[in-house]
Amino acid sequence: MKSIFIAQINPTVGDFEGNSQKILRSIRAAKEQGADLVLFPEQALLGYPAEDLLLLPAFVEKSAAALDSIVREVHGISVILGLVQPSNEEKPLYNSAVLIQEGRIVDSYHKRLLPTYDVFTEKRYFAEGKEAKVWEIAGKRVAVTICEDIWPHASEVFETDYGVDPVLEIKDVDLLVNLSASPFSLGKFHRRMNVATTAAKTAGCPVIVCNQVGGNDSLIFDGRSLVVNEKGELLLELAPFEEEGALFELSSTETVHPTQKDPMEKLHDALILGLRDYFQKQGFKKALVGLSGGIDSAVVAVLAKEALGSDHVHALLMPSRYSSEGSIHDSYELVENLELPHDLISIEPLFNTALETTAPYFEGLSPDVTEENMQARLRGLLLMAFSNKFGSLVLSTGNKSELAMGYATLYGDMVGGLAVISDITKQQVYQLARWINRDKEIIPQAIIDKPPSAELRENQLDSDTLPDYTIIDNVLEDYIVGHLSVKEIVERHGYSETLVKELIHRIHQSEYKRRQAAPGLRVSDKAFSAGRRFPIVERTTGG
Amino acid sequence: MKSIFIAQINPTVGDFEGNSQKILRSIRAAKEQGADLVLFPEQALLGYPAEDLLLLPAFVEKSAAALDSIVREVHGISVILGLVQPSNEEKPLYNSAVLIQEGRIVDSYHKRLLPTYDVFTEKRYFAEGKEAKVWEIAGKRVAVTICEDIWPHASEVFETDYGVDPVLEIKDVDLLVNLSASPFSLGKFHRRMNVATTAAKTAGCPVIVCNQVGGNDSLIFDGRSLVVNEKGELLLELAPFEEEGALFELSSTETVHPTQKDPMEKLHDALILGLRDYFQKQGFKKALVGLSGGIDSAVVAVLAKEALGSDHVHALLMPSRYSSEGSIHDSYELVENLELPHDLISIEPLFNTALETTAPYFEGLSPDVTEENMQARLRGLLLMAFSNKFGSLVLSTGNKSELAMGYATLYGDMVGGLAVISDITKQQVYQLARWINRDKEIIPQAIIDKPPSAELRENQLDSDTLPDYTIIDNVLEDYIVGHLSVKEIVERHGYSETLVKELIHRIHQSEYKRRQAAPGLRVSDKAFSAGRRFPIVERTTGG
Repeated sequence: MKSIFIAQINPTVGDFEGNSQKILRSIRAAKEQGADLVLFPEQALLGYPAEDLLLLPAFVEKSAAALDSIVREVHGISVILGLVQPSNEEKPLYNSAVLIQEGRIVDSYHKRLLPTYDVFTEKRYFAEGKEAKVWEIAGKRVAVTICEDIWPHASEVFETDYGVDPVLEIKDVDLLVNLSASPFSLGKFHRRMNVATTAAKTAGCPVIVCNQVGGNDSLIFDGRSLVVNEKGELLLELAPFEEEGALFELSSTETVHPTQKDPMEKLHDALILGLRDYFQKQGFKKALVGLSGGIDSAVVAVLAKEALGSDHVHALLMPSRYSSEGSIHDSYELVENLELPHDLISIEPLFNTALETTAPYFEGLSPDVTEENMQARLRGLLLMAFSNKFGSLVLSTGNKSELAMGYATLYGDMVGGLAVISDITKQQVYQLARWINRDKEIIPQAIIDKPPSAELRENQLDSDTLPDYTIIDNVLEDYIVGHLSVKEIVERHGYSETLVKELIHRIHQSEYKRRQAAPGLRVSDKAFSAGRRFPIVERTTGG
Repeated sequence: MKSIFIAQINPTVGDFEGNSQKILRSIRAAKEQGADLVLFPEQALLGYPAEDLLLLPAFVEKSAAALDSIVREVHGISVILGLVQPSNEEKPLYNSAVLIQEGRIVDSYHKRLLPTYDVFTEKRYFAEGKEAKVWEIAGKRVAVTICEDIWPHASEVFETDYGVDPVLEIKDVDLLVNLSASPFSLGKFHRRMNVATTAAKTAGCPVIVCNQVGGNDSLIFDGRSLVVNEKGELLLELAPFEEEGALFELSSTETVHPTQKDPMEKLHDALILGLRDYFQKQGFKKALVGLSGGIDSAVVAVLAKEALGSDHVHALLMPSRYSSEGSIHDSYELVENLELPHDLISIEPLFNTALETTAPYFEGLSPDVTEENMQARLRGLLLMAFSNKFGSLVLSTGNKSELAMGYATLYGDMVGGLAVISDITKQQVYQLARWINRDKEIIPQAIIDKPPSAELRENQLDSDTLPDYTIIDNVLEDYIVGHLSVKEIVERHGYSETLVKELIHRIHQSEYKRRQAAPGLRVSDKAFSAGRRFPIVERTTGG
């Protein structure tokens, strides 16, 4: 074997026709470039994760039929493809890789370690493979593994001790290949490199990781397929956040440096891909964003424009009596900078009518959060009316810190088909805004500089009811991601126990809101919208 | 051993203090009644399911501390209690039963079969126990098992073949006990009886199943703990849907008949328990229901009244220009029958203002679903305003058939903290209404008789855009619960393939709405709100 074609494709879940075409195109390209072997990501034929579609026999049959059609086309090259295979074990399917040669399936390998933590639910669907497989391909001995199989060897797994380390069983091979569907989070490539490097050193051979790329619901797969040599040095890295097919010459020895990017650039590119795929894969073209004059909606508008183009993003400015002159002015400046079609619609007539309509029933009661939420919900109503009328998809603009605190109005600013920045903290929103403005002022500086406010009552500021976002974000990181206790968080930051308990209490208390939130793009190791399952009814602060 | 006290308790997830008190009270009652052994449900100390709370070390520590306090109190009796225990295996916890005697933990048993299908996610948290345990208690040999352990023996599991049957390993014992947290669905007791009976016959001894009771989020546990003798005859059945402690004399031979209830009575009682616990366990007292004059909201109002009392249920009638005289009249009759406090608020001023506000932007475009949704969303806005102002929890009133079809307005009639009837089909709603009216007309007959309509435009009927509910419900049952293919459904009912495909397509297309729906009470074998995980972005009709 001289060369391997790494087919980093972007499949759509259940799109057997589209995925098969991508696969066949890659095989043709590989042959044209003289590759001996073409390698695909985990579950490339079905798209990962297919979730409960895997429980439908008709779905699995379609997958088998699509495989048959592909197999017939394979001649003069070896193909390793990720898909499901039937099992007689605990669950009816395996998460498999098949070796296809000369119009037939030569052998199958079944994933041995099935992640069942965070966003992963593989034991719901798959039986564990029990056997290592080494395939002789064009004169080389190739060990095949699927994603998680090689992660414990580098101690890079969560909440699980498999008690088995497939990497240790690999002996006397020329190459280790790993089919992956490894979702992006900040810092994940570093971990993935560590996994590949550690495996390569132990197995004493090059490792090729072929990773899925593309957005599927909340998950964003970053691609960045890679090859390391037996010393763990990087020989090849495929594009981040894009489809790519690349030929790797087994004889190559030249090392490369991993792509260096600002974390904010990575976050930005990840969100763009997640957003674009959420639209494209569903056939949506147009987005709708409500601009408040605040930083969250400004950042979402920028991302939407970059993902979909100015012509496909409509902005609504919906001021009320409490909106500052500055907010309206700043929003206008933003839509001009972004060249977004936009409308300004005052919610005052609706808000007045709502106040009049409810007045007889609320007589003698002071204004409170009711009237604040009313404004947010009237804006939600207008966004949804435009969405219905023009077939556009509303982007919700809440960030992770707000969502943690429940500082958001259900059916108000939470409306939308996709929560673009719901997994980035308020501080990251600021960092991202500054990165967006790195060359020129796209987001008006005034939006970045003003103190955060929901503008739902006179002179309201977020700081009236929330502690500083630095504190919130630290507690968020330690409690949501790190699972630290109140005591540990108090010791780590020197915050008062009362404050930490109150913040954790708010996180638990607002679970009911998050349960009804739009799906959000996951970019951290623990997002609210996927991979985190807390009861609504429970009596613990968790601390 | 002469007698066993079966403590069918209703724990709240994470309420270690409250749950410990219930446990200690049961132990005292058992001792007073001279029992040798007291038996609790699965995870009785923590409440089932605790979900990701189990990943918080501080939560597990609290559980251990609570256990210590209980253990110290145990004297002169044996206690078998369900809880978590630390593990060094694949996952850091076991789902365990401990035997407590004379102030110490004598032994632990770890659940061997961990359901990871439908609503169950046990392999996310627990390691499998590997060992059968037989405990010598007061001179008798007692085999201990936890829930799923004995289900495969009666072939009563889904999507899983454990390859192990703990029942077959039970030899020479005097008694088999099973700690359960087995959620209600229609027909579930029959299956649970089958499980107990089959195990009893094989093990050749009596079987005691102690099942959790109470509502936890979407899940309703029905209790109905039971004892069968070695011939599989029922000797004792505890109350359905209620806490109960009952003494079982090992010498008793008198058989009893299982409680016979109309399926609608069971459905009714289950929903009442689920509703009541959702409120009580969160400390909510007041519910709010929007009455449309249709059957769904009428049934929800009846259930709310029975669960919480007339004083704690407020009804809102929110007619528009499209509401029929009949609907308003019927709603008034209903609130009078139920003695519910209520208000009538026309949405016309708000609807007019919304039409005026959007008119300049929608010029030249015909009215469509936009204006229909607007009305539903204005009603949602009013419900939420009352909810915010008076601290009541909105009950959403959509049924399973509508939810399947996406025949509901997101942020409109879908608003609410709890979806009371989201797991019962339109046909079951009618059956339940007739059962509610079995002795006298509580729900005005006109509400039952009128053809279903959303009344969002002139002379609108559900049948304008939906096929007959009989057809929908059949497809729903076969596709959602039975996972049948288009072909199988067509053959079974003689519907056209086009129709079946279209309905299945609608089910998939409306996944995005259900993702943002309020949690719903689960009463079938496959509910939308829990235990069903489909991608939003996918390109298959699933058929």
